[in-house]
Amino acid sequence: MKVLVLYFSKGGNTRKLAEAVSKGVEDVEGVDVVLKHTDNVTKEDFISSGGIIAGSPVYFGVMAAELKKVFDEFIGVRTQMEGKVGAAFATSGDPTGGKETTMMSIIQTMLVYGLVIVGDPMSATGHFGVACAGAPDRNTEDNAIKLGRRVAELAKKLAG
Amino acid sequence: MKVLVLYFSKGGNTRKLAEAVSKGVEDVEGVDVVLKHTDNVTKEDFISSGGIIAGSPVYFGVMAAELKKVFDEFIGVRTQMEGKVGAAFATSGDPTGGKETTMMSIIQTMLVYGLVIVGDPMSATGHFGVACAGAPDRNTEDNAIKLGRRVAELAKKLAG
Amino acid sequence: MKVLVLYFSKGGNTRKLAEAVSKGVEDVEGVDVVLKHTDNVTKEDFISSGGIIAGSPVYFGVMAAELKKVFDEFIGVRTQMEGKVGAAFATSGDPTGGKETTMMSIIQTMLVYGLVIVGDPMSATGHFGVACAGAPDRNTEDNAIKLGRRVAELAKKLAG
Amino acid sequence: MKVLVLYFSKGGNTRKLAEAVSKGVEDVEGVDVVLKHTDNVTKEDFISSGGIIAGSPVYFGVMAAELKKVFDEFIGVRTQMEGKVGAAFATSGDPTGGKETTMMSIIQTMLVYGLVIVGDPMSATGHFGVACAGAPDRNTEDNAIKLGRRVAELAKKLAG
Repeated sequence: MKVLVLYFSKGGNTRKLAEAVSKGVEDVEGVDVVLKHTDNVTKEDFISSGGIIAGSPVYFGVMAAELKKVFDEFIGVRTQMEGKVGAAFATSGDPTGGKETTMMSIIQTMLVYGLVIVGDPMSATGHFGVACAGAPDRNTEDNAIKLGRRVAELAKKLAG
Repeated sequence: MKVLVLYFSKGGNTRKLAEAVSKGVEDVEGVDVVLKHTDNVTKEDFISSGGIIAGSPVYFGVMAAELKKVFDEFIGVRTQMEGKVGAAFATSGDPTGGKETTMMSIIQTMLVYGLVIVGDPMSATGHFGVACAGAPDRNTEDNAIKLGRRVAELAKKLAG
Repeated sequence: MKVLVLYFSKGGNTRKLAEAVSKGVEDVEGVDVVLKHTDNVTKEDFISSGGIIAGSPVYFGVMAAELKKVFDEFIGVRTQMEGKVGAAFATSGDPTGGKETTMMSIIQTMLVYGLVIVGDPMSATGHFGVACAGAPDRNTEDNAIKLGRRVAELAKKLAG
Repeated sequence: MKVLVLYFSKGGNTRKLAEAVSKGVEDVEGVDVVLKHTDNVTKEDFISSGGIIAGSPVYFGVMAAELKKVFDEFIGVRTQMEGKVGAAFATSGDPTGGKETTMMSIIQTMLVYGLVIVGDPMSATGHFGVACAGAPDRNTEDNAIKLGRRVAELAKKLAG
C-alpha cells in the first residue's frame, strides 16, 4: 500500500510541510510514502496509491495553478481513483488569509475524483487539513505527521 | 450499525430526497437507517450512528439555519464523532444556484466534526452529493439511493 | 445614508470586533452606523441601509445559526437589497481553522441577496474580511476600522 | 473605460458564454469591452480595465489551471487592482456539479485582488454568476448579457 504526498513549492515551505506529512505516512506499518513534486508526479503514482495528500502554497485563496494542472491533466484516471483517501495541506507567505480556502479548493477537486476526504485529526486541530504561515514550526510539523498517519491508517483500512 | 439521515424540510422536497437516501442505507445488510427531521434529532442519534447524511433546502447558498442549529448545539458530542462517515444532500426551490455551496457548507461543518467525507458515487454524478431543483425525479432518487448505499457501506467497513 | 453592522456574539469577541467595524463606518462623513445584535435587527434595518457588514463567531466553519436565521427569515426583502454593499467579519474561539470559510459563507449568502461584495482593503490584509482568534487586538481593530470605512465609502459612492 | 472579459476555453462553450457577456458590456455607453483568451491576456489588460469578468470551464469544481495561472503570474499588478469590479462565469461539460464552486473559486481569487464583486443580477438568476452545462442557450446568453451590463455599469459608476 502506497500513499502519495504531492506538493508544489517554490520557496520551500510547502516542501517542508510535505516532508512532515510524509513522516506520518511512514509511521504506519505496511504503508509506504511516495513524495512527489508536481513536476515529477505521474498518473501511475495516482493509480498505484491508496491515498493522496496534496499541498499548495496559498496563491490568491485557491490552490496554485501548478497543482490544479496535475488534477486537470490526470482526468483520464479519475474513474480509477474512487474510494481512495484524500486530504490537503497549505502554506502561506504571510499570516493573512487564504489557507482554508486553498485547502477547500483541493478538497473540492478530490471529491470530484471520488476520494474519501479527511481533515487533520482532533489531536491536531480537527479542521480542514494542516496549514501554516511561513515555514512550519515544530507544532505544525507534529500536526502534519498526525495528518499523514490518519490518511495512511484509513487507506490501509479501506484496502484491507 | 446505524446511519443517521438528518434533514430540514418545509415544503417536503428535502424530506422526499431524505427518504430516497434512507432507502439506500437500508439496502446495506447489517445497517439500519435512522431518519430524523431537525426538530426531533438527539445527541444520542449522533453518538450511536456510524455515519450522518445531512440535507437542507437551499436558502441563500448555505444550509438552512435549522440544520446549522443542530450542529452548533451538539458541539458537546463533537469529539465522539471523529472517524464516522459524513455526506450531504440539498434541494432548491428553483433551478438557479446554491445547491453546491449548500452541500459544501454541510461538508465543511462535518470536517470540523472530524467526519470522513464522501460525495455521491461516480455511478450517480460523482460530485459533492445529491441535489435537485424542486421535487426529486426518478433519476435523482436513484442517485440518492446510491449515496445512501455508499455511506452505509463505508460506515460498515470503518466500524468492522 | 446608513450602514448596518450586524453581529451575533455570545462571549463578546464578535461584539468587540463589530464595534471596531462601526467606528470605521462612522469615520465616513454623511454615513451613520446602525449596530445591531441578531436578536434586535429588523427588516427595516436591512431596507434602510446602503450596506451590511455581518459578523459571526466561527462555529464549525460556517456562520452561526443565529446569523443565518436572520438572512433566511428576511427573504421577503431580498429584492430590495440588490446593489447595496456587503462585507463579512468573524472571530474564532481558538487559533485553528474556520474563519475564512465562515466569512465566505456570509459572502455567499450576501451574493444571493444581490449585494456588491468587498473584502478588507489591502491597507488591512486584502483578503475576505476581518477576523481574529479570541478578542481583537489593536491591529485587528485597526483592520476592522478600515473595513468599516471601505464599505461606508463604497455605499456612499453607489448611492450618490 | 474598459472592461476585460477573460476566459479559457477548449471546446468553445466558455468562449460562447464570454461573447455573450461581452455584448452586455458593450451595451453600456462609454464602456468598451476587451475580450481575451487566457493565452493572450496581458498585465496591461488588467491595469487598464475598470473591471474583470472571468470565466472557466468546470474542471473538478475549481477554475481551470490555465485561468488560475494568469491570476498567479500577474501578482505584480495586484495592488493596482483594488477597487475595480470583478465577476465570474462558468460552463460545464455535463449537467452535474461544479459550476458554483468554480465561480466561487474565481470570486475568492478576485477578493484577494481587492476587487469589488458582483454576481449576476436578480433579473438573471441573482446568484454567484452565469453558468450553464454545454453550450449556452438563449436564456443563458440573456443572463450573460445582463451580467456584462451589471459589471460595466458598476465599473463606470466607481470610476466616475
